[in-house]
Amino acid sequence: MIQLYDLAGARDDCRFSSNCWPVRMALLHKGLPFEAIPWRFTDKQTIAFSGQGLVPVLVDGDLTVFDKWKIAEYLEEAYPDRPSLFGGERGQALAHFVTNWTSSVIAGHAIRLILTDIFAVIHDKDKEYFRTSREQRFGMSLEAVVEDRDTGVGELRRSLQPLRMSLARTPYLSGDTPAWADYVAFGPFQWARSVSRFQLIKSDDPVFAWRSRMIDLFDQAANKVHILNT
Amino acid sequence: MIQLYDLAGARDDCRFSSNCWPVRMALLHKGLPFEAIPWRFTDKQTIAFSGQGLVPVLVDGDLTVFDKWKIAEYLEEAYPDRPSLFGGERGQALAHFVTNWTSSVIAGHAIRLILTDIFAVIHDKDKEYFRTSREQRFGMSLEAVVEDRDTGVGELRRSLQPLRMSLARTPYLSGDTPAWADYVAFGPFQWARSVSRFQLIKSDDPVFAWRSRMIDLFDQAANKVHILNT
Repeated sequence: MIQLYDLAGARDDCRFSSNCWPVRMALLHKGLPFEAIPWRFTDKQTIAFSGQGLVPVLVDGDLTVFDKWKIAEYLEEAYPDRPSLFGGERGQALAHFVTNWTSSVIAGHAIRLILTDIFAVIHDKDKEYFRTSREQRFGMSLEAVVEDRDTGVGELRRSLQPLRMSLARTPYLSGDTPAWADYVAFGPFQWARSVSRFQLIKSDDPVFAWRSRMIDLFDQAANKVHILNT
Repeated sequence: MIQLYDLAGARDDCRFSSNCWPVRMALLHKGLPFEAIPWRFTDKQTIAFSGQGLVPVLVDGDLTVFDKWKIAEYLEEAYPDRPSLFGGERGQALAHFVTNWTSSVIAGHAIRLILTDIFAVIHDKDKEYFRTSREQRFGMSLEAVVEDRDTGVGELRRSLQPLRMSLARTPYLSGDTPAWADYVAFGPFQWARSVSRFQLIKSDDPVFAWRSRMIDLFDQAANKVHILNT
């Protein structure tokens, strides 16, 4: 069976990674059985066989693939007879663009709203590593990063305008049914709701309704882990 | 022959609209002959037959279509045997996302850098309309909008990160060859170079190299109009 090394918090059922969730949903989309192995930030030895130290790492028989986008491309190529994640080469190129937009825009804004909430749910053995590495990246304390949430949440909401406009045309970013672009864009929302009660989007935002549709997919897969914000 | 009502400046060969350029390139992509009719902001009567007052307006025989995205969808459906603009339904949905991203992000930042330069090249008969409508939209004078270009250009450049990341994978946003997503994202760059000498992106930016590839398409179509910034 396919194995997915999946970031976990102190609780084994807290699976909050915005990078692992799209892979999990891609596996469900393809209908491939998998085991999601709980992994913590400091378990570098456990995934050393992949040649690097970050999850998601996917092991399929003899093959090891890391990086969410590389895994998506691998699954599409290795399982062409299963439902497509991209719908052809053009769709694949633009799904990559949405992956980039998600990382640099949605996740970039969202992390400034939930960084201390992530810190609160991670395993004790990860806390020093997390604080040190993130404080180095941001050049300030975790607490300072999230200090001005009210400004930050406004920036996040404004930045979602292209997604909002797409949802005025079709129920999913990828069209009438969801595909990789939806799974990847959903990642940061699932991340936030797994660790934080902070409300990223208003309940009357079309993005909120899309988020609800994403939660409902695959027999409510996104609710089968520990969640703090419905 | 297909007719495209195309925004022009004081000079008939100044065709600067970020919304008309994608349509022009889509027609070239499809290999459809067309006539691009110069039109000014205040020529509302000329396109009243379309039921609204903005270009692009495309007339194909008995059919009239307006709005760049609606025109792209029309061309794809009406000319399915010509090269595809989207590469299937998934590609079409995500090309719509790129259209939205271009309007709200690239064009949204770029207009704050070139607004007075647009004013300088438009027809005298359009000047009062342009100043009044834009000053109302921005809630300040044209000159005040572009006052802090140095901050604005930094924001624009940062906002291009998802495009930059895509160009690290393939030469065009749409993959190995260009399609609608490239044409629409190129719109604001062609707009800027048609009216302004202000440098939106640095020459060592991968986006700059992509912009050069876009200029080269269709026998350098983007250079066959009046240009201020090479």
